[in-house]
Amino acid sequence: MNPSKPLNARSTQTATLAEIAREAGVSAPTVSKVLNGRADVAPATRTRVEELLRSYGYRRRRAEATRSPLIDLVFHELESAWAMEVIRGVENVARDEGLSVVLSESAGRLTPGRTWADQVAARRPYGVILVLSGLDESGRALLTSRSIPFVVMDPAGDPGDDVPSIGATNWHGGLAATRHLVELGHTRIGAISGPSRMMCSRARVDGYRAALETAGLPVDPALIRPGNFHHESGYRAGLELLRSPDRPTAVFAGNDLQALGLYEAARELGLRVPEDLSVVGFDDLPVARWVGPPLTTVRQPLTEMAEAAARLVLELGREQGASAATRVELATSLVVRSSTGAPPA
Amino acid sequence: MNPSKPLNARSTQTATLAEIAREAGVSAPTVSKVLNGRADVAPATRTRVEELLRSYGYRRRRAEATRSPLIDLVFHELESAWAMEVIRGVENVARDEGLSVVLSESAGRLTPGRTWADQVAARRPYGVILVLSGLDESGRALLTSRSIPFVVMDPAGDPGDDVPSIGATNWHGGLAATRHLVELGHTRIGAISGPSRMMCSRARVDGYRAALETAGLPVDPALIRPGNFHHESGYRAGLELLRSPDRPTAVFAGNDLQALGLYEAARELGLRVPEDLSVVGFDDLPVARWVGPPLTTVRQPLTEMAEAAARLVLELGREQGASAATRVELATSLVVRSSTGAPPA
Repeated sequence: MNPSKPLNARSTQTATLAEIAREAGVSAPTVSKVLNGRADVAPATRTRVEELLRSYGYRRRRAEATRSPLIDLVFHELESAWAMEVIRGVENVARDEGLSVVLSESAGRLTPGRTWADQVAARRPYGVILVLSGLDESGRALLTSRSIPFVVMDPAGDPGDDVPSIGATNWHGGLAATRHLVELGHTRIGAISGPSRMMCSRARVDGYRAALETAGLPVDPALIRPGNFHHESGYRAGLELLRSPDRPTAVFAGNDLQALGLYEAARELGLRVPEDLSVVGFDDLPVARWVGPPLTTVRQPLTEMAEAAARLVLELGREQGASAATRVELATSLVVRSSTGAPPA
Repeated sequence: MNPSKPLNARSTQTATLAEIAREAGVSAPTVSKVLNGRADVAPATRTRVEELLRSYGYRRRRAEATRSPLIDLVFHELESAWAMEVIRGVENVARDEGLSVVLSESAGRLTPGRTWADQVAARRPYGVILVLSGLDESGRALLTSRSIPFVVMDPAGDPGDDVPSIGATNWHGGLAATRHLVELGHTRIGAISGPSRMMCSRARVDGYRAALETAGLPVDPALIRPGNFHHESGYRAGLELLRSPDRPTAVFAGNDLQALGLYEAARELGLRVPEDLSVVGFDDLPVARWVGPPLTTVRQPLTEMAEAAARLVLELGREQGASAATRVELATSLVVRSSTGAPPA
């Protein structure tokens, strides 16, 4: 599957649509109804037609597909301030192009459900942006057969080489965060990871390890605690790390929300940031500047990433996408504020 | 205009559509095209038809209007974590009803532009929720003539008695915040307002005044500073208040983001919260629990308000809306955390 591949010629398409109808034992208009996500098709018929569309690799000709001036934006979850930065980026591009944004949440599951895919087929957006949210095989086939391009932003899993995706240099970010702590003189540096199924989280922790190893410092597995990118898990992992007898003097918190949870754990234990504990976050959400002390963090250009994803998906839709890179990583950068300092004497 | 009024009978409607076409000197299908937001109508013709639709008070019969399974959600601005709470509420209801949410930003203007209205007319959502964002006369007429119901959430201005709206008890919130400070023994209490054109902001400051007056304390205009509900304005107003010779010992910050700006101003001047300065916010965003010290604030049930707005607009669309209250205010409540205490001795 490659959204940037040129479409088949008309004759092949027409033959295929007719063939699919014949093979499914239905009329051509019924196949059209399925393609348009219409509700008035029996579920069994629809399943049969979808399977045939997929096995034939059918792709709707763009000319016959009337688009709605919409971009679909799908989140794994809408819980965090993180999501707002992404929404703003997509809105910026949509506004410039006279498009509106349809927002969905896959409600914690990493693959949006069938109902969502049906709705997308019915409303025919210009393109789909999936945030931290993959597409299963049938979802991909459904979008492909309707010629609806899609892009994955900051993929949770490995999206596959043929899926266009936009990310950030997570590994370099983890490296820069940890090197900063090493340069300040810290030797016992902890880390709180995100969910292990998310590639961005693995990459950050690997960058942390690389910084320790290249500095000749040991990597102590007891200092790496699992989190889920939420405040609460930073608090819990923070209490564990800070209550241990040989506690770390600095922690790379994995993201900003976990860093704020870690702040709370430190406050509860009477430890001052940065005098007793240095903390580095990841993301640079607006709140990172506002907390006390202002948080040293790795800036991830979320709004720019979302803008790039929106522009890429529209390019793919205009079929100028043949040369579009399938994976773009925008640079992260360390922002030093007041939560990091030398280790306690 | 009253979205909850029963629709006219069929005969009247048909006559009116034909009449409008005749009077505009166009065909009935052209009037339909205008109603459907189609692009292939000359701008002058469209304007003429819109004016006639409006002056005749034309309302499309619901049966002939095919709806898209969408709810339109329009924000004044998407800058704040505030917006995420609202989006979640609307998403909750939409998901239960099998609808998707179209998100727009009126880009800082308080009335969404004409392009937006055209897009809404073309996509025919089940309903429109306007957040802190009014509708001008022509926007209302446009939605009304298409029988697209709308609800205003937390109106910035006075939405008018005939516009269904959902808000919170802002006045009581300002009262409760300030009474809490009075009860702690404060007598010099400052306030930072939001934009004066927003009714919610005026109501909060009026609640603050009422608390002082009923406690027999003077209202000092020099202690009330204007803000715009953003962090930066809380910081600037905070510096002004805290640098004055007879500085307040407590401040009602108007909202949580301004409270965080005030924290920063206090830190910069070496004042401790709450030992030297008590601070109360408004909203109870997630970040209020995470900052140091955790913020005493007035909880506004944003997600529940958004859910109520979504349910109300869907009810209006189902024409069960005849009995729908045109103005619902959900209760605010004071949440006492660690940013408030007795005044310095």
